[in-house]
Amino acid sequence: MLRCVGPQCEADIDDLPVEEPLQIRIAGEDVAVTMRTPGHDSELAAGFLFSEGIIGAKSHIESIQPCMGDDGLLAPNIINVFPTDRELVDPRRWRRDFFAASSCGLCGKTSISSVTRCLAPITSAISTNHSTMYSLADKLRMAQEGFARSGGLHAAGLFDLDGNLLLLREDIGRHNAVDKIVGHALLNDLLPLDKHILLVSSRASFEIVQKALAAGVAILAAISAPSSLAVELAAEAGMTLVAFLREGRMNVYAGSERIEG
Amino acid sequence: MLRCVGPQCEADIDDLPVEEPLQIRIAGEDVAVTMRTPGHDSELAAGFLFSEGIIGAKSHIESIQPCMGDDGLLAPNIINVFPTDRELVDPRRWRRDFFAASSCGLCGKTSISSVTRCLAPITSAISTNHSTMYSLADKLRMAQEGFARSGGLHAAGLFDLDGNLLLLREDIGRHNAVDKIVGHALLNDLLPLDKHILLVSSRASFEIVQKALAAGVAILAAISAPSSLAVELAAEAGMTLVAFLREGRMNVYAGSERIEG
Repeated sequence: MLRCVGPQCEADIDDLPVEEPLQIRIAGEDVAVTMRTPGHDSELAAGFLFSEGIIGAKSHIESIQPCMGDDGLLAPNIINVFPTDRELVDPRRWRRDFFAASSCGLCGKTSISSVTRCLAPITSAISTNHSTMYSLADKLRMAQEGFARSGGLHAAGLFDLDGNLLLLREDIGRHNAVDKIVGHALLNDLLPLDKHILLVSSRASFEIVQKALAAGVAILAAISAPSSLAVELAAEAGMTLVAFLREGRMNVYAGSERIEG
Repeated sequence: MLRCVGPQCEADIDDLPVEEPLQIRIAGEDVAVTMRTPGHDSELAAGFLFSEGIIGAKSHIESIQPCMGDDGLLAPNIINVFPTDRELVDPRRWRRDFFAASSCGLCGKTSISSVTRCLAPITSAISTNHSTMYSLADKLRMAQEGFARSGGLHAAGLFDLDGNLLLLREDIGRHNAVDKIVGHALLNDLLPLDKHILLVSSRASFEIVQKALAAGVAILAAISAPSSLAVELAAEAGMTLVAFLREGRMNVYAGSERIEG
């Protein structure tokens, strides 16, 4: 790499965020490839399958195993999820579930109804306060070793209502960081996350809200902007959505009753 | 929305980046759903199908049409691409092409070989200079009305070698912004972009490099970090890859011979 400042360049090296494909399989059948930062791959696979509605509970997973290559060595970029329900081994079944969100009744409908799966609304009557919310961004940033080093990794942090950081996951893909949190919660019997705050270092898109909703997250916060559809979904689902959370400021887009003065 | 500064909150409204699903179809068959900012949908559909290797040339497209809903009204979130080659109407054919990148020979292989399609390398013997490169970020930012308003839209800008902005596209998804550029170039007979610089306001991931490579982009620049795999692919493909391009600085990760002093 050449590092150039104005007209001067010199050879240098830097730590780049690592990106590798992960092929997620169910009992040997390809489900999806995601470009991810290696680490916590079992959580990522479990969280992806759960938040996409393919796996419904921890009890539906018999085991999660890396794939063995033809050469007898572990293939680090393939992970195999074996379901307890043998029906799930049939790709037709999960393909139906997987594409249901996107293909049913889209023609003639717009926006949210066409891509929303039927997820339970958040009814959790918990609350936190302003100063706790304002403290989260610094805690996330300080916990992010990788982010500070390369500037290229997204983070998702799971906090309790007192603002204690319970879990941090990083990834080059912001969806993956959330899936790793959701997968960890699934595999450790922590779901639903209805007494928790999930903070993402990125924007809050529709898909981030949908993944958080699948995990029952009561309060979702983002450092950057939310999308129009993210706000719409959070409001419909009864989720508290905070964005632009930084430097003692935040915008509360939905569910403000969970944030007290 | 409640806008909170410290302990004080007041009701306010803001312009959020618009996110809506776009269902891309080939002759009525679902290919993909992408969450996008509406606008330039034909370009997005064409660029997506081209950069994913499903459509090989402009001549393969007979027409691109919005979908009509059951109610007889246009469905703004569905777009239909009709290919000239009737074989492409068969979903088995494009599904094979579409998934070929991710599923062939992945087990036992790692990283780049498993997800790279066979794309022609960049052999373009063009060059630009430092001051031109440094000028691009400001030009992109100034051209971005939407970005300034909401802070949530990614941009991709196509420049000539003198640093003139030829085309700007914005989207909530950074891949979509690039697909819109590629689709515009495809539909207007501008491919390959081998005498051009493509600047993205975001990171440079593997998929961004792959899309740029499909369009023959000679110089790809990013405001933020590249990923490890993006650098690897650019170097293999002979593409010039610049990242962290801001404030009179840049890092050149591959193809530095195209940037003269």
